[in-house]
Amino acid sequence: MKSIKVIKIGGKVAENDEHLDAFLKDFVALNGAKILVHGGGIVATKIGEKLGIETTMIEGRRVTDKETLEVATMVYGGLINKKIVGRLQALGVNAAGFTGADMNLIQSKKRNPEPIDFGWVGDIEFVNLHGLKSLLGQEITPILAPLTHDGKGHLLNTNADSIASKVAQELAKEFEVELKLCFDMAGVLNEEKLITEMNLLLFRYLEGNGIIKDGMIPKLDLGFEALNNGVKEVTIQSFKSLKESNSGTRLSK
Amino acid sequence: MKSIKVIKIGGKVAENDEHLDAFLKDFVALNGAKILVHGGGIVATKIGEKLGIETTMIEGRRVTDKETLEVATMVYGGLINKKIVGRLQALGVNAAGFTGADMNLIQSKKRNPEPIDFGWVGDIEFVNLHGLKSLLGQEITPILAPLTHDGKGHLLNTNADSIASKVAQELAKEFEVELKLCFDMAGVLNEEKLITEMNLLLFRYLEGNGIIKDGMIPKLDLGFEALNNGVKEVTIQSFKSLKESNSGTRLSK
Repeated sequence: MKSIKVIKIGGKVAENDEHLDAFLKDFVALNGAKILVHGGGIVATKIGEKLGIETTMIEGRRVTDKETLEVATMVYGGLINKKIVGRLQALGVNAAGFTGADMNLIQSKKRNPEPIDFGWVGDIEFVNLHGLKSLLGQEITPILAPLTHDGKGHLLNTNADSIASKVAQELAKEFEVELKLCFDMAGVLNEEKLITEMNLLLFRYLEGNGIIKDGMIPKLDLGFEALNNGVKEVTIQSFKSLKESNSGTRLSK
Repeated sequence: MKSIKVIKIGGKVAENDEHLDAFLKDFVALNGAKILVHGGGIVATKIGEKLGIETTMIEGRRVTDKETLEVATMVYGGLINKKIVGRLQALGVNAAGFTGADMNLIQSKKRNPEPIDFGWVGDIEFVNLHGLKSLLGQEITPILAPLTHDGKGHLLNTNADSIASKVAQELAKEFEVELKLCFDMAGVLNEEKLITEMNLLLFRYLEGNGIIKDGMIPKLDLGFEALNNGVKEVTIQSFKSLKESNSGTRLSK
Protein backbone atom coordinates (compact mmCIF):
# COMPACT_ATOMS: atom_id res chain seq x y z
CA MET A 1 0.00 0.00 0.00
CA LYS A 2 1.36 3.39 -0.96
CA SER A 3 1.84 5.91 1.78
CA ILE A 4 0.91 9.57 1.79
CA LYS A 5 1.12 12.45 4.24
CA VAL A 6 -1.63 15.02 4.65
CA ILE A 7 -0.28 18.11 6.37
CA LYS A 8 -2.34 21.05 7.55
CA ILE A 9 -1.00 24.48 8.48
CA GLY A 10 -2.92 27.39 9.92
CA GLY A 11 -3.08 31.03 8.98
CA LYS A 12 -0.38 32.06 11.47
CA VAL A 13 2.26 30.20 9.45
CA ALA A 14 1.02 31.55 6.15
CA GLU A 15 1.03 35.10 7.45
CA ASN A 16 4.72 35.14 8.33
CA ASP A 17 7.07 34.81 5.35
CA GLU A 18 9.99 33.59 7.44
CA HIS A 19 7.93 30.90 9.17
CA LEU A 20 6.33 29.89 5.89
CA ASP A 21 9.68 29.51 4.12
CA ALA A 22 11.13 27.45 6.97
CA PHE A 23 8.03 25.25 7.03
CA LEU A 24 8.03 24.76 3.25
CA LYS A 25 11.67 23.67 3.29
CA ASP A 26 10.81 21.00 5.87
CA PHE A 27 7.73 20.06 3.86
CA VAL A 28 9.81 19.58 0.71
CA ALA A 29 12.28 17.39 2.63
CA LEU A 30 9.55 14.92 3.63
CA ASN A 31 9.74 11.70 1.66
CA GLY A 32 6.96 10.43 -0.53
CA ALA A 33 3.61 11.72 -1.71
CA LYS A 34 2.03 14.55 0.25
CA ILE A 35 -0.82 16.99 0.26
CA LEU A 36 -0.77 20.38 1.98
CA VAL A 37 -3.92 22.00 3.35
CA HIS A 38 -3.68 25.59 4.50
CA GLY A 39 -5.85 27.95 6.51
CA GLY A 40 -5.68 31.71 6.43
CA GLY A 41 -8.33 33.15 8.75
CA ILE A 42 -5.92 35.62 10.35
CA VAL A 43 -4.89 37.08 6.99
CA ALA A 44 -8.51 37.20 5.80
CA THR A 45 -9.55 39.07 8.94
CA LYS A 46 -6.82 41.66 8.41
CA ILE A 47 -7.66 42.23 4.77
CA GLY A 48 -11.37 42.25 5.55
CA GLU A 49 -10.73 44.98 8.11
CA LYS A 50 -8.79 47.04 5.56
CA LEU A 51 -11.74 46.65 3.18
CA GLY A 52 -14.10 47.83 5.91
CA ILE A 53 -15.80 44.46 6.26
CA GLU A 54 -16.60 43.59 9.83
CA THR A 55 -16.03 40.08 11.08
CA THR A 56 -19.04 38.71 12.92
CA MET A 57 -18.29 35.84 15.28
CA ILE A 58 -20.91 33.62 16.92
CA GLU A 59 -19.65 31.22 19.58
CA GLY A 60 -16.08 31.79 18.41
CA ARG A 61 -16.89 30.93 14.81
CA ARG A 62 -16.81 33.34 11.91
CA VAL A 63 -20.04 34.17 10.09
CA THR A 64 -19.47 34.14 6.33
CA ASP A 65 -21.70 36.69 4.65
CA LYS A 66 -21.37 37.40 0.92
CA GLU A 67 -18.59 39.95 1.38
CA THR A 68 -16.67 37.76 3.81
CA LEU A 69 -16.87 34.89 1.32
CA GLU A 70 -15.36 37.15 -1.34
CA VAL A 71 -12.49 38.05 0.98
CA ALA A 72 -12.00 34.36 1.82
CA THR A 73 -11.97 33.49 -1.89
CA MET A 74 -9.34 36.17 -2.55
CA VAL A 75 -7.14 35.42 0.42
CA TYR A 76 -7.38 31.62 0.62
CA GLY A 77 -7.79 30.77 -3.06
CA GLY A 78 -5.51 33.55 -4.35
CA LEU A 79 -3.04 35.23 -2.04
CA ILE A 80 -1.98 32.42 0.29
CA ASN A 81 -2.49 29.48 -2.04
CA LYS A 82 -0.52 30.95 -4.93
CA LYS A 83 2.26 32.25 -2.69
CA ILE A 84 2.77 28.69 -1.41
CA VAL A 85 2.61 27.21 -4.91
CA GLY A 86 5.15 29.72 -6.28
CA ARG A 87 7.57 29.03 -3.46
CA LEU A 88 7.25 25.26 -3.72
CA GLN A 89 7.90 25.45 -7.47
CA ALA A 90 11.10 27.34 -6.66
CA LEU A 91 12.02 24.53 -4.25
CA GLY A 92 11.62 21.97 -7.03
CA VAL A 93 8.20 20.61 -6.07
CA ASN A 94 5.57 20.46 -8.80
CA ALA A 95 2.83 22.02 -6.68
CA ALA A 96 -0.61 23.05 -7.89
CA GLY A 97 -3.22 24.90 -5.86
CA PHE A 98 -6.87 23.95 -5.69
CA THR A 99 -10.10 24.84 -3.99
CA GLY A 100 -12.78 22.19 -3.70
CA ALA A 101 -14.42 23.65 -6.82
CA ASP A 102 -11.38 22.96 -9.01
CA MET A 103 -11.80 19.54 -10.62
CA ASN A 104 -14.72 19.15 -8.23
CA LEU A 105 -12.21 17.95 -5.64
CA ILE A 106 -14.38 18.62 -2.58
CA GLN A 107 -18.10 19.16 -2.53
CA SER A 108 -19.92 20.37 0.52
CA LYS A 109 -23.35 21.40 1.67
CA LYS A 110 -24.19 24.87 2.91
CA ARG A 111 -24.69 24.56 6.63
CA ASN A 112 -28.29 24.61 7.84
CA PRO A 113 -29.10 28.19 8.94
CA GLU A 114 -30.91 26.75 11.98
CA PRO A 115 -30.23 27.19 14.88
CA ILE A 116 -27.37 29.56 13.92
CA ASP A 117 -26.91 31.00 10.44
CA PHE A 118 -23.17 30.90 9.73
CA GLY A 119 -23.76 32.01 6.14
CA TRP A 120 -21.69 30.65 3.24
CA VAL A 121 -20.05 27.85 5.20
CA GLY A 122 -19.86 24.32 3.87
CA ASP A 123 -19.82 20.92 5.54
CA ILE A 124 -17.97 18.39 3.42
CA GLU A 125 -20.03 15.70 1.71
CA PHE A 126 -17.71 14.34 -0.98
CA VAL A 127 -13.96 14.10 -1.54
CA ASN A 128 -12.95 13.25 -5.11
CA LEU A 129 -10.50 10.39 -4.55
CA HIS A 130 -10.23 9.76 -8.29
CA GLY A 131 -9.23 13.38 -8.93
CA LEU A 132 -6.67 13.42 -6.11
CA LYS A 133 -5.18 10.13 -7.29
CA SER A 134 -4.91 11.45 -10.82
CA LEU A 135 -2.95 14.49 -9.57
CA LEU A 136 -0.70 12.35 -7.38
CA GLY A 137 -0.16 9.99 -10.31
CA GLN A 138 1.28 12.92 -12.25
CA GLU A 139 3.59 13.65 -9.31
CA ILE A 140 1.74 16.86 -8.60
CA THR A 141 1.65 18.01 -4.98
CA PRO A 142 -1.85 19.39 -4.32
CA ILE A 143 -2.10 22.52 -2.17
CA LEU A 144 -5.65 22.79 -0.89
CA ALA A 145 -7.27 26.09 0.11
CA PRO A 146 -10.06 26.04 2.72
CA LEU A 147 -12.83 26.58 0.19
CA THR A 148 -15.26 24.03 -1.23
CA HIS A 149 -18.31 24.30 -3.48
CA ASP A 150 -21.89 23.08 -3.49
CA GLY A 151 -21.98 22.01 -7.16
CA LYS A 152 -24.61 24.66 -7.78
CA GLY A 153 -22.19 27.49 -8.48
CA HIS A 154 -21.50 28.61 -4.92
CA LEU A 155 -18.15 28.54 -3.18
CA LEU A 156 -18.29 27.74 0.52
CA ASN A 157 -15.91 28.67 3.31
CA THR A 158 -14.73 25.40 4.86
CA ASN A 159 -12.58 24.73 7.90
CA ALA A 160 -9.06 23.67 6.92
CA ASP A 161 -8.82 21.03 9.69
CA SER A 162 -12.04 19.49 8.33
CA ILE A 163 -10.61 19.43 4.80
CA ALA A 164 -7.40 17.80 6.01
CA SER A 165 -9.29 15.18 8.05
CA LYS A 166 -11.85 14.31 5.35
CA VAL A 167 -9.18 14.15 2.63
CA ALA A 168 -7.08 11.88 4.87
CA GLN A 169 -10.10 9.64 5.52
CA GLU A 170 -10.90 9.32 1.82
CA LEU A 171 -7.28 8.60 0.90
CA ALA A 172 -7.17 5.95 3.66
CA LYS A 173 -9.33 3.74 1.41
CA GLU A 174 -6.30 3.23 -0.83
CA PHE A 175 -3.26 4.66 0.94
CA GLU A 176 -1.46 4.37 4.25
CA VAL A 177 -2.13 7.90 5.49
CA GLU A 178 -0.37 10.07 8.06
CA LEU A 179 -2.33 13.16 9.08
CA LYS A 180 -0.46 16.02 10.70
CA LEU A 181 -2.47 18.95 12.00
CA CYS A 182 0.16 21.64 12.49
CA PHE A 183 -0.20 24.92 14.32
CA ASP A 184 1.85 27.34 16.40
CA MET A 185 2.03 25.29 19.59
CA ALA A 186 3.97 22.13 20.38
CA GLY A 187 0.80 20.01 20.50
CA VAL A 188 -2.04 19.55 22.97
CA LEU A 189 -0.89 21.17 26.19
CA ASN A 190 -1.81 20.93 29.85
CA GLU A 191 -0.48 24.05 31.55
CA GLU A 192 2.26 24.46 28.93
CA LYS A 193 3.28 20.83 29.25
CA LEU A 194 3.00 18.76 26.08
CA ILE A 195 0.71 15.74 26.19
CA THR A 196 2.57 13.30 23.95
CA GLU A 197 -0.19 10.73 23.57
CA MET A 198 -3.93 11.15 23.63
CA ASN A 199 -6.74 8.65 23.37
CA LEU A 200 -10.45 9.30 23.37
CA LEU A 201 -10.92 8.56 27.05
CA LEU A 202 -8.17 10.99 28.08
CA PHE A 203 -9.53 13.61 25.66
CA ARG A 204 -13.04 13.40 27.11
CA TYR A 205 -11.66 13.53 30.65
CA LEU A 206 -9.52 16.62 29.93
CA GLU A 207 -12.38 18.25 28.03
CA GLY A 208 -14.72 17.58 30.93
CA ASN A 209 -12.26 19.24 33.28
CA GLY A 210 -11.91 22.32 31.07
CA ILE A 211 -8.24 21.62 30.34
CA ILE A 212 -8.92 21.07 26.64
CA LYS A 213 -11.20 23.76 25.30
CA ASP A 214 -12.16 26.12 22.47
CA GLY A 215 -10.64 25.37 19.04
CA MET A 216 -8.73 22.34 20.31
CA ILE A 217 -11.96 20.37 20.78
CA PRO A 218 -13.08 20.29 17.11
CA LYS A 219 -9.45 19.70 16.09
CA LEU A 220 -9.23 16.62 18.29
CA ASP A 221 -12.69 15.46 17.20
CA LEU A 222 -11.54 15.60 13.57
CA GLY A 223 -8.30 13.84 14.46
CA PHE A 224 -10.10 10.96 16.20
CA GLU A 225 -12.63 10.76 13.37
CA ALA A 226 -9.71 10.28 10.96
CA LEU A 227 -8.10 7.66 13.21
CA ASN A 228 -11.38 5.75 13.44
CA ASN A 229 -11.81 5.84 9.67
CA GLY A 230 -8.60 4.18 8.66
CA VAL A 231 -5.99 6.94 8.88
CA LYS A 232 -2.90 5.24 10.22
CA GLU A 233 -1.32 8.02 12.23
CA VAL A 234 -2.67 11.34 13.46
CA THR A 235 -0.58 13.95 15.24
CA ILE A 236 -1.26 17.48 16.42
CA GLN A 237 2.03 19.32 16.40
CA SER A 238 4.01 22.47 15.75
CA PHE A 239 4.66 23.52 12.16
CA LYS A 240 8.28 23.82 13.30
CA SER A 241 8.68 20.14 14.17
CA LEU A 242 7.78 18.55 10.86
CA LYS A 243 11.19 16.93 10.52
CA GLU A 244 11.27 15.45 14.01
CA SER A 245 9.72 12.08 14.56
CA ASN A 246 7.67 11.61 17.71
CA SER A 247 6.95 15.29 18.12
CA GLY A 248 3.63 16.75 19.15
CA THR A 249 0.59 14.88 20.42
CA ARG A 250 -0.01 11.49 18.86
CA LEU A 251 -3.57 10.24 18.88
CA SER A 252 -4.19 6.60 19.74
CA LYS A 253 -7.31 4.45 19.85
CA MET B 1 -5.26 16.70 -35.60
CA LYS B 2 -7.38 17.49 -32.56
CA SER B 3 -8.93 20.92 -32.37
CA ILE B 4 -9.06 23.26 -29.40
CA LYS B 5 -10.39 26.71 -28.68
CA VAL B 6 -8.52 29.26 -26.57
CA ILE B 7 -10.89 31.99 -25.43
CA LYS B 8 -9.90 35.13 -23.60
CA ILE B 9 -12.26 37.43 -21.70
CA GLY B 10 -11.44 40.74 -20.06
CA GLY B 11 -12.17 42.10 -16.63
CA LYS B 12 -15.36 43.87 -17.72
CA VAL B 13 -17.08 40.54 -18.31
CA ALA B 14 -15.82 39.08 -15.06
CA GLU B 15 -16.99 42.10 -13.12
CA ASN B 16 -20.64 41.79 -14.12
CA ASP B 17 -22.37 38.62 -12.86
CA GLU B 18 -25.11 38.75 -15.49
CA HIS B 19 -22.63 39.13 -18.37
CA LEU B 20 -20.39 36.46 -16.92
CA ASP B 21 -23.22 33.96 -16.56
CA ALA B 22 -24.41 34.59 -20.13
CA PHE B 23 -20.87 34.24 -21.45
CA LEU B 24 -20.20 31.04 -19.49
CA LYS B 25 -23.39 29.44 -20.87
CA ASP B 26 -22.18 30.16 -24.41
CA PHE B 27 -18.71 28.91 -23.48
CA VAL B 28 -20.13 25.64 -22.20
CA ALA B 29 -22.14 25.20 -25.42
CA LEU B 30 -18.98 25.33 -27.58
CA ASN B 31 -18.01 21.91 -28.88
CA GLY B 32 -14.71 20.25 -28.12
CA ALA B 33 -11.73 21.00 -25.94
CA LYS B 34 -11.28 24.57 -24.72
CA ILE B 35 -9.24 26.76 -22.44
CA LEU B 36 -10.45 29.98 -20.89
CA VAL B 37 -8.09 32.84 -20.06
CA HIS B 38 -9.48 35.71 -18.02
CA GLY B 39 -8.34 39.21 -17.12
CA GLY B 40 -9.52 41.23 -14.17
CA GLY B 41 -7.74 44.58 -14.11
CA ILE B 42 -10.93 46.55 -13.52
CA VAL B 43 -11.85 44.50 -10.46
CA ALA B 44 -8.27 44.65 -9.15
CA THR B 45 -8.23 48.44 -9.48
CA LYS B 46 -11.49 48.73 -7.53
CA ILE B 47 -10.33 46.44 -4.73
CA GLY B 48 -6.91 48.11 -4.69
CA GLU B 49 -8.64 51.47 -4.22
CA LYS B 50 -10.70 50.11 -1.33
CA LEU B 51 -7.47 48.87 0.24
CA GLY B 52 -5.92 52.30 -0.20
CA ILE B 53 -3.41 51.13 -2.80
CA GLU B 54 -2.90 53.65 -5.56
CA THR B 55 -2.65 52.46 -9.12
CA THR B 56 0.34 53.93 -10.92
CA MET B 57 0.10 53.93 -14.70
CA ILE B 58 2.97 54.65 -17.07
CA GLU B 59 2.06 55.00 -20.75
CA GLY B 60 -1.32 53.44 -20.06
CA ARG B 61 0.17 50.37 -18.38
CA ARG B 62 -0.15 49.47 -14.74
CA VAL B 63 2.93 49.43 -12.55
CA THR B 64 2.91 46.33 -10.34
CA ASP B 65 4.57 47.12 -7.03
CA LYS B 66 4.55 44.53 -4.24
CA GLU B 67 1.15 45.57 -2.91
CA THR B 68 -0.39 45.68 -6.37
CA LEU B 69 0.93 42.17 -7.03
CA GLU B 70 -0.77 40.97 -3.84
CA VAL B 71 -4.06 42.49 -4.98
CA ALA B 72 -3.62 40.91 -8.42
CA THR B 73 -2.90 37.54 -6.81
CA MET B 74 -6.04 37.82 -4.68
CA VAL B 75 -8.34 39.09 -7.40
CA TYR B 76 -7.09 37.14 -10.44
CA GLY B 77 -5.96 33.93 -8.78
CA GLY B 78 -8.72 33.88 -6.16
CA LEU B 79 -11.86 35.93 -6.60
CA ILE B 80 -12.40 35.85 -10.37
CA ASN B 81 -10.78 32.53 -11.15
CA LYS B 82 -12.67 30.58 -8.49
CA LYS B 83 -15.98 32.28 -9.24
CA ILE B 84 -15.66 31.11 -12.86
CA VAL B 85 -14.61 27.60 -11.82
CA GLY B 86 -17.53 27.25 -9.38
CA ARG B 87 -20.04 28.37 -11.99
CA LEU B 88 -18.65 26.13 -14.72
CA GLN B 89 -18.81 23.15 -12.35
CA ALA B 90 -22.49 23.97 -11.81
CA LEU B 91 -22.92 23.98 -15.61
CA GLY B 92 -21.45 20.49 -15.82
CA VAL B 93 -17.94 21.40 -17.00
CA ASN B 94 -15.03 19.94 -15.08
CA ALA B 95 -13.14 23.22 -14.78
CA ALA B 96 -9.99 23.82 -12.77
CA GLY B 97 -8.31 27.17 -12.24
CA PHE B 98 -4.59 27.77 -12.58
CA THR B 99 -2.00 30.48 -12.49
CA GLY B 100 1.25 29.93 -14.36
CA ALA B 101 2.84 28.80 -11.08
CA ASP B 102 0.44 25.88 -10.67
CA MET B 103 1.99 22.79 -12.28
CA ASN B 104 4.57 25.24 -13.66
CA LEU B 105 2.15 25.87 -16.53
CA ILE B 106 3.59 29.23 -17.59
CA GLN B 107 6.99 30.61 -16.69
CA SER B 108 7.98 34.16 -17.38
CA LYS B 109 10.79 36.59 -16.82
CA LYS B 110 10.46 39.75 -14.78
CA ARG B 111 10.51 42.60 -17.25
CA ASN B 112 13.75 44.55 -17.45
CA PRO B 113 13.40 47.66 -15.23
CA GLU B 114 15.08 49.73 -17.96
CA PRO B 115 13.90 52.00 -19.50
CA ILE B 116 10.66 51.82 -17.48
CA ASP B 117 10.29 49.82 -14.28
CA PHE B 118 6.86 48.18 -14.45
CA GLY B 119 7.60 46.19 -11.29
CA TRP B 120 6.42 42.58 -10.85
CA VAL B 121 5.37 42.07 -14.45
CA GLY B 122 6.35 38.97 -16.39
CA ASP B 123 7.02 38.34 -20.06
CA ILE B 124 6.26 34.74 -20.97
CA GLU B 125 9.18 32.45 -21.73
CA PHE B 126 7.73 28.97 -21.44
CA VAL B 127 4.31 27.35 -21.79
CA ASN B 128 4.07 23.82 -20.40
CA LEU B 129 2.45 21.95 -23.30
CA HIS B 130 2.89 18.62 -21.52
CA GLY B 131 1.01 19.91 -18.45
CA LEU B 132 -1.82 21.41 -20.51
CA LYS B 133 -2.18 18.21 -22.54
CA SER B 134 -2.29 16.14 -19.38
CA LEU B 135 -5.16 18.30 -18.06
CA LEU B 136 -7.02 18.16 -21.38
CA GLY B 137 -6.48 14.41 -21.49
CA GLN B 138 -8.38 14.16 -18.21
CA GLU B 139 -11.21 16.21 -19.77
CA ILE B 140 -10.42 19.10 -17.48
CA THR B 141 -11.16 22.59 -18.79
CA PRO B 142 -8.28 24.84 -17.65
CA ILE B 143 -9.21 28.35 -16.50
CA LEU B 144 -6.09 30.49 -16.60
CA ALA B 145 -5.60 33.59 -14.43
CA PRO B 146 -3.27 36.36 -15.70
CA LEU B 147 -0.44 35.45 -13.34
CA THR B 148 2.74 33.58 -14.11
CA HIS B 149 5.90 32.84 -12.09
CA ASP B 150 9.64 33.11 -12.54
CA GLY B 151 10.51 29.70 -11.09
CA LYS B 152 12.37 31.45 -8.29
CA GLY B 153 9.38 31.85 -6.00
CA HIS B 154 7.91 35.05 -7.42
CA LEU B 155 4.52 35.42 -9.01
CA LEU B 156 4.37 37.89 -11.89
CA ASN B 157 1.48 39.92 -13.23
CA THR B 158 1.03 38.95 -16.87
CA ASN B 159 -1.23 40.34 -19.55
CA ALA B 160 -4.16 37.99 -20.26
CA ASP B 161 -4.03 38.57 -24.05
CA SER B 162 -0.36 37.52 -23.97
CA ILE B 163 -1.22 34.36 -22.04
CA ALA B 164 -3.99 33.48 -24.48
CA SER B 165 -1.75 34.11 -27.50
CA LYS B 166 1.30 32.23 -26.16
CA VAL B 167 -0.82 29.29 -24.98
CA ALA B 168 -2.49 29.15 -28.40
CA GLN B 169 0.90 29.21 -30.14
CA GLU B 170 2.26 26.40 -28.00
CA LEU B 171 -0.87 24.27 -28.49
CA ALA B 172 -0.62 24.88 -32.26
CA LYS B 173 2.35 22.48 -32.29
CA GLU B 174 -0.08 19.62 -31.72
CA PHE B 175 -3.60 20.96 -32.10
CA GLU B 176 -5.70 22.85 -34.61
CA VAL B 177 -6.20 26.01 -32.55
CA GLU B 178 -8.82 28.73 -32.68
CA LEU B 179 -7.95 31.83 -30.65
CA LYS B 180 -10.75 34.20 -29.69
CA LEU B 181 -9.81 37.42 -27.94
CA CYS B 182 -13.14 38.61 -26.53
CA PHE B 183 -13.95 41.97 -25.05
CA ASP B 184 -16.84 44.39 -24.75
CA MET B 185 -16.88 45.66 -28.33
CA ALA B 186 -17.96 43.94 -31.54
CA GLY B 187 -14.37 43.70 -32.80
CA VAL B 188 -11.88 46.15 -34.29
CA LEU B 189 -13.88 49.24 -35.17
CA ASN B 190 -13.44 52.19 -37.49
CA GLU B 191 -15.80 54.95 -36.34
CA GLU B 192 -18.14 52.38 -34.74
CA LYS B 193 -18.18 50.29 -37.90
CA LEU B 194 -16.90 46.73 -37.52
CA ILE B 195 -13.89 45.73 -39.60
CA THR B 196 -14.70 42.10 -40.39
CA GLU B 197 -11.30 41.10 -41.77
CA MET B 198 -7.85 42.40 -40.98
CA ASN B 199 -4.46 41.56 -42.37
CA LEU B 200 -1.10 42.94 -41.34
CA LEU B 201 -0.96 45.53 -44.13
CA LEU B 202 -4.38 46.95 -43.24
CA PHE B 203 -3.48 46.91 -39.52
CA ARG B 204 -0.29 48.91 -40.09
CA TYR B 205 -2.14 51.33 -42.38
CA LEU B 206 -4.92 51.93 -39.83
CA GLU B 207 -2.39 52.16 -36.99
CA GLY B 208 -0.36 54.71 -39.00
CA ASN B 209 -3.48 56.79 -39.49
CA GLY B 210 -4.36 56.71 -35.80
CA ILE B 211 -7.56 54.74 -36.38
CA ILE B 212 -6.27 51.75 -34.43
CA LYS B 213 -4.65 52.85 -31.20
CA ASP B 214 -4.02 52.26 -27.49
CA GLY B 215 -4.76 48.77 -26.18
CA MET B 216 -5.94 47.52 -29.56
CA ILE B 217 -2.38 47.64 -30.96
CA PRO B 218 -0.79 45.05 -28.61
CA LYS B 219 -3.96 42.93 -28.92
CA LEU B 220 -3.60 42.83 -32.70
CA ASP B 221 0.16 42.27 -32.46
CA LEU B 222 -0.48 39.24 -30.27
CA GLY B 223 -3.19 38.04 -32.64
CA PHE B 224 -0.92 38.25 -35.69
CA GLU B 225 1.92 36.63 -33.76
CA ALA B 226 -0.40 33.68 -33.06
CA LEU B 227 -1.51 33.51 -36.70
CA ASN B 228 2.11 33.51 -37.87
CA ASN B 229 3.01 30.77 -35.41
CA GLY B 230 0.55 28.15 -36.52
CA VAL B 231 -2.72 29.15 -34.85
CA LYS B 232 -5.38 28.38 -37.43
CA GLU B 233 -7.92 31.07 -36.72
CA VAL B 234 -7.74 34.28 -34.71
CA THR B 235 -10.68 36.58 -34.07
CA ILE B 236 -11.17 39.69 -31.97
CA GLN B 237 -14.79 39.80 -31.00
CA SER B 238 -17.46 40.54 -28.42
CA PHE B 239 -17.87 38.16 -25.50
CA LYS B 240 -21.55 38.23 -26.44
CA SER B 241 -21.04 36.71 -29.88
CA LEU B 242 -19.30 33.47 -28.96
CA LYS B 243 -22.07 31.35 -30.46
CA GLU B 244 -22.21 33.21 -33.78
CA SER B 245 -19.88 32.13 -36.53
CA ASN B 246 -18.20 34.89 -38.54
CA SER B 247 -18.61 37.50 -35.86
CA GLY B 248 -15.97 40.04 -34.90
CA THR B 249 -12.75 40.80 -36.72
CA ARG B 250 -11.04 37.82 -38.29
CA LEU B 251 -7.29 38.10 -38.80
CA SER B 252 -5.82 36.88 -42.07
CA LYS B 253 -2.28 36.60 -43.36
